[in-house]
Amino acid sequence: MPVTLAVDAMGGDHGPSVTVPASLRFLEDAPDARVILAGRPDAIEDSLAKEKPNDRLSVQTAAEVVDMDEPPADALRKKKDSSLRVAINLVKDGTADGCVSAGNTGALMAIARFVLKTLPGIDRPAIASQLPTKTGVTTALDLGANVNCTAEQLVQFAVMGSALVAAVDGIDRPTVGLLNIGEEDIKGNDVVKAAAELLKSSGLNFHGNIEGDDIYKGTTDVVVCDGFVGNVALKTSEGLATMLYEFLRAEFTRNPATRIAALFAYPVLMAFKRRIDPRRYNGATLVGLKGVVVKSHGGADALAFRYALDKAHAEVVNGVLERIAQRIAAMPAPAAAPPSVEARPLPNA
Amino acid sequence: MPVTLAVDAMGGDHGPSVTVPASLRFLEDAPDARVILAGRPDAIEDSLAKEKPNDRLSVQTAAEVVDMDEPPADALRKKKDSSLRVAINLVKDGTADGCVSAGNTGALMAIARFVLKTLPGIDRPAIASQLPTKTGVTTALDLGANVNCTAEQLVQFAVMGSALVAAVDGIDRPTVGLLNIGEEDIKGNDVVKAAAELLKSSGLNFHGNIEGDDIYKGTTDVVVCDGFVGNVALKTSEGLATMLYEFLRAEFTRNPATRIAALFAYPVLMAFKRRIDPRRYNGATLVGLKGVVVKSHGGADALAFRYALDKAHAEVVNGVLERIAQRIAAMPAPAAAPPSVEARPLPNA
Repeated sequence: MPVTLAVDAMGGDHGPSVTVPASLRFLEDAPDARVILAGRPDAIEDSLAKEKPNDRLSVQTAAEVVDMDEPPADALRKKKDSSLRVAINLVKDGTADGCVSAGNTGALMAIARFVLKTLPGIDRPAIASQLPTKTGVTTALDLGANVNCTAEQLVQFAVMGSALVAAVDGIDRPTVGLLNIGEEDIKGNDVVKAAAELLKSSGLNFHGNIEGDDIYKGTTDVVVCDGFVGNVALKTSEGLATMLYEFLRAEFTRNPATRIAALFAYPVLMAFKRRIDPRRYNGATLVGLKGVVVKSHGGADALAFRYALDKAHAEVVNGVLERIAQRIAAMPAPAAAPPSVEARPLPNA
Repeated sequence: MPVTLAVDAMGGDHGPSVTVPASLRFLEDAPDARVILAGRPDAIEDSLAKEKPNDRLSVQTAAEVVDMDEPPADALRKKKDSSLRVAINLVKDGTADGCVSAGNTGALMAIARFVLKTLPGIDRPAIASQLPTKTGVTTALDLGANVNCTAEQLVQFAVMGSALVAAVDGIDRPTVGLLNIGEEDIKGNDVVKAAAELLKSSGLNFHGNIEGDDIYKGTTDVVVCDGFVGNVALKTSEGLATMLYEFLRAEFTRNPATRIAALFAYPVLMAFKRRIDPRRYNGATLVGLKGVVVKSHGGADALAFRYALDKAHAEVVNGVLERIAQRIAAMPAPAAAPPSVEARPLPNA
């Protein structure tokens, strides 16, 4: 079945100068696919004029653009003809099978949730992304959509993450780790402890508690955490990787001798850089919605945005939404509806 | 004034084989200092026999050892003659000015809190540690002692972190960042939002909200967060650094050509490695107690443990405890004792 992706052509720091060439490269390698670019035709035409035409690419006019720092509530209420919203509308009305945006994350989440709604059994959507590990990749969620989660929501994240990994990576029963500050059952806050108990009887392949260093060890296929913790872990990682890269660069450019060493080491350093290239992991999935929505990094270049398009395409082809719905439906019914456990301070010991 | 440090000689993965030589190297460079090794005399003597004697080093017998994975409550109740507890007792009775342990973190915190008590105005102690940044170092707290914090506790962490940095690093008014998932005031959970409001009127040099990547950018001198988030950020950083190091090593040992490149690059790679050597940052401070307590990494070697000793020494010499007490006393009184704000889920938008 041919897949149609809607692209928020105006989103991100670079707009059509990135989204247009990325869409064309994507179409060249996906001969059955179609792309609908949502945005201002004049801006899109400027970028299209530099490229070879492709009749599987079309344009859907959207007069407005959501600013990268615009409050999500404003974008939702006031910009009903934004490129971001028009792209999501194309998914809603069935014209497109999924959409990709490099725009304002909060606005994308708010509008996608408002327009598409969540899947049955899902309280709130989450942001899931692949991260590189020593042994391959892991999928972590939530990375910032939900700052206060209940134990039940963490379980829903686990279900959605498992379904995503099963569908896209072809792992039958992905292992699920619950991000905590110790491996023992007694560690962590009340929400995490309650989530661990629920996960044990969830039917998922629950590995147990994991710690921060397990993310990059690749201890589990899925890493579950609340959005505050996940966002801090992700941003901290970005900051550390940037610092280490700059330190390495500084050492190799310190003096003439180190510059000569850099010449010899250049191919090796480039291989290292390719291996950890964040562009390869671009594209976070907004899971839990009635539609495939992928968020690209705002600063993505055409190569990185292309990876986000590939991700949306793979999710559609592999039926991620159906898989999540099936797994949610297969969850054991909660015994006598346990009360939602919320974060609260421990009594002083 | 000569400084005396009590050392938990048996703590950590390596016990006296690390703590003894590290203490002797420390004494060689600190001619006024004294060290009291708490532990089993036979085990300590074995390690001392391999070293040049120093009459500023003495031994205080402690018959028991707290296991690295022993539940803190058990260590507190049942092991009253452990090396860890004897070292803390030496601080309590004034024999030592501070203590250092590479032992079980939870047990160290529980016993230190029970024996030494917290400073007036401090609800719970926190774990603070220096981290390297692009521009120098930053001090982050809490890194794992408190999994559920109130806004008032986060403010106390800010006060303690500021006092620590002011005393040890000689920065008059350290900048304080509140770790969050966005810089805007509206971002974050309720506890963090309330803490930001309190920090604005705290008299501290409050920079505002920061994100995970600001830690390693060195945006602020102090990074404040709850212990769950801080521990995840720290462990995630350790995992990422290890993975990147292994990837770099793998690329340089891939084949004969890359091994030759590695020879040329060797001095540069070693300079890079020294720059980020985690041993240089070994030694986390348990702040908020009526006594200087420094926790070394359990796997520390003698060089790393030596850094932890230096840290405890510097804190004593620079009067960290007095500085914290002064800053707490100077805090504006809370207006009509605002109720403690606790984490709770946001209503669905």
